[in-house]
Amino acid sequence: MSQTNYFIPQLSLELEEAIQHKLDNKAKPVGSLGRLESLAKQVALIQQTLTPELKNPVMLTVAADHGICAEGVSACPVDITWQQVLNFLQGGGGIGLLSRVYGMELHVVDAGVDFDFNPHPKLIDAKVRKGSRNFLHEPAMTPNECLQAFNNGRKIVAKFNNDGTNIIGFGEMGIGNTSPASALMAIICQLPVKDCVGPGAGLDQAGVSHKGRVIEQAIAKHGVSDNVFENLARFGGLEIATIAGGMFEAAARRMVVLVDGFITTSAMLVAGKINPNVLSYAVFAHESEEQGHHKMLQHMQANPLLNFDLRLGEGTGAAMAYPLLQGAVAVLSEMTSFEEAQVINTSHIRFEEASRK
Amino acid sequence: MSQTNYFIPQLSLELEEAIQHKLDNKAKPVGSLGRLESLAKQVALIQQTLTPELKNPVMLTVAADHGICAEGVSACPVDITWQQVLNFLQGGGGIGLLSRVYGMELHVVDAGVDFDFNPHPKLIDAKVRKGSRNFLHEPAMTPNECLQAFNNGRKIVAKFNNDGTNIIGFGEMGIGNTSPASALMAIICQLPVKDCVGPGAGLDQAGVSHKGRVIEQAIAKHGVSDNVFENLARFGGLEIATIAGGMFEAAARRMVVLVDGFITTSAMLVAGKINPNVLSYAVFAHESEEQGHHKMLQHMQANPLLNFDLRLGEGTGAAMAYPLLQGAVAVLSEMTSFEEAQVINTSHIRFEEASRK
Repeated sequence: MSQTNYFIPQLSLELEEAIQHKLDNKAKPVGSLGRLESLAKQVALIQQTLTPELKNPVMLTVAADHGICAEGVSACPVDITWQQVLNFLQGGGGIGLLSRVYGMELHVVDAGVDFDFNPHPKLIDAKVRKGSRNFLHEPAMTPNECLQAFNNGRKIVAKFNNDGTNIIGFGEMGIGNTSPASALMAIICQLPVKDCVGPGAGLDQAGVSHKGRVIEQAIAKHGVSDNVFENLARFGGLEIATIAGGMFEAAARRMVVLVDGFITTSAMLVAGKINPNVLSYAVFAHESEEQGHHKMLQHMQANPLLNFDLRLGEGTGAAMAYPLLQGAVAVLSEMTSFEEAQVINTSHIRFEEASRK
Repeated sequence: MSQTNYFIPQLSLELEEAIQHKLDNKAKPVGSLGRLESLAKQVALIQQTLTPELKNPVMLTVAADHGICAEGVSACPVDITWQQVLNFLQGGGGIGLLSRVYGMELHVVDAGVDFDFNPHPKLIDAKVRKGSRNFLHEPAMTPNECLQAFNNGRKIVAKFNNDGTNIIGFGEMGIGNTSPASALMAIICQLPVKDCVGPGAGLDQAGVSHKGRVIEQAIAKHGVSDNVFENLARFGGLEIATIAGGMFEAAARRMVVLVDGFITTSAMLVAGKINPNVLSYAVFAHESEEQGHHKMLQHMQANPLLNFDLRLGEGTGAAMAYPLLQGAVAVLSEMTSFEEAQVINTSHIRFEEASRK
């Protein structure tokens, strides 16, 4: 699993000055739309245009099961994974609802759920195996399974992009998946496991401590590799590998990548470890309540858009952030300039940092 | 100007338990949609229903001019007020754009702009006079003018509510209006003026200090009354008085009130001073970059939805927060329960505060 094939060019800053000039000449005080303007600039740089637009927004909610659940690391029964997949496909659950409310087309990916689904137009079959292995005892995936999941993500995103999608949100469903996410975080961010584990869907304090010990033992048993794919195979999950591949492909195709919560962010950690240039294409939707998410985001110098105490996953936070992207893009592409608006131009009035709070 | 007519009943909490029970039985871990759930609960309590909905959302951007501009308290020429009113009416500017992007119907109110507008279907004529007086030398409004502006706001909101609107956002346009907002804040929050002034549209540090001194001198000259209307008349603005009246009427009619930035929040300070029960109907959209907004929000124990470094006003932050309200209402009214979703019920798993970050 060589990393040499995973090249993504650095985001070109060639248009930065022209974008800033255009923003500064909108009929408003310079910079007064704050983070909406920086978001607009990021999307414009990704799309390399002064008139960015968001086309056919897709939410990919990727599901898998986890052998590590045998160690009692989750508060929830594993059957919830497949039950929620069916629920999402019928428009139910958090992401079934919120993707509809915010106008993102939801597709559910079976990356490795321990269940035989009937075909459904919104279900993408990318099952590598029925759940990852229990990584306390053996690697979660073989290197080939891991690469297969990663490449599945790439293929799925490539297809959507070929069909016209230029923005893609990622979410996940997988009982037990905070454990692989925490393990990958501990390894990639080089943090103690105790800083990376939290209650997930509802563990009590003893449960969180137990989860931490299981992860520590697993890392001690398998060791940490220099190769990020190898670590992903040992401690990851099939949905995390599939999402990481999807994010990677999205960046390679200059798509906007909308990142949801703790698990999805761990996939971005992996993708960013393969090639840090991926991070330029990432919009971090929110900071969740799951302990560890804050430090994970910090590690990538991410400044998430929302702080809403979410801890559901599925892509729900990413869906909630989508309208902010719509606003940002509209500001740059559609908002009237001083000239168009026939409003006295005040773009010479520059904000002094010192006069701010 | 007696305050005895301004009665608003306390928000009934009768349905609170039933709302919480319904939220807890949605197919997701208890409480995992965080602030989206508390927002849903607030709207449900306001509407006194388990199936809240948002109907005919209206954005009222209220404009006026300010005599205090003669003292050089703003970085911008006063003609921008009327020019922006025309710009908004044509769908331009920040709020012309963002109200359209987020599906709120924009109406611009002329509460006291120093300009003669031609009639326009989206312009509401509620002009009390062509700008408030220079409150460094004389009260900004007579008591009658102030009450007239307040009652104009009530009438405008009453009409929208009669036509079916149950959620209303407020924004403003008025060169110089951070000065009256800061003065009202200093008086109502009992804070030093220096904690209440900031750069507005772009004053430098010397300009901010000058603005603070002007406000201090004005307060010293006219004194502070026990009567909030009296203070509003002495130091306020025609748009602030109109918005305060609009907010008051909206609360009296159990509408959701979406509050924008520094100026609009100062109108909520006034409305909340008249009757603190108004605050139960307020959804604070965002914390702006204007120094003082943080403390103003704190004074009302408000926890704004967004932190986006905005400092534009016009209602832009309120428009950006509207989709979050849509999501919140959809969660309570539309999201599948465990039973409907045929997902194993985990509502017995309660989150332990101790296990959170």
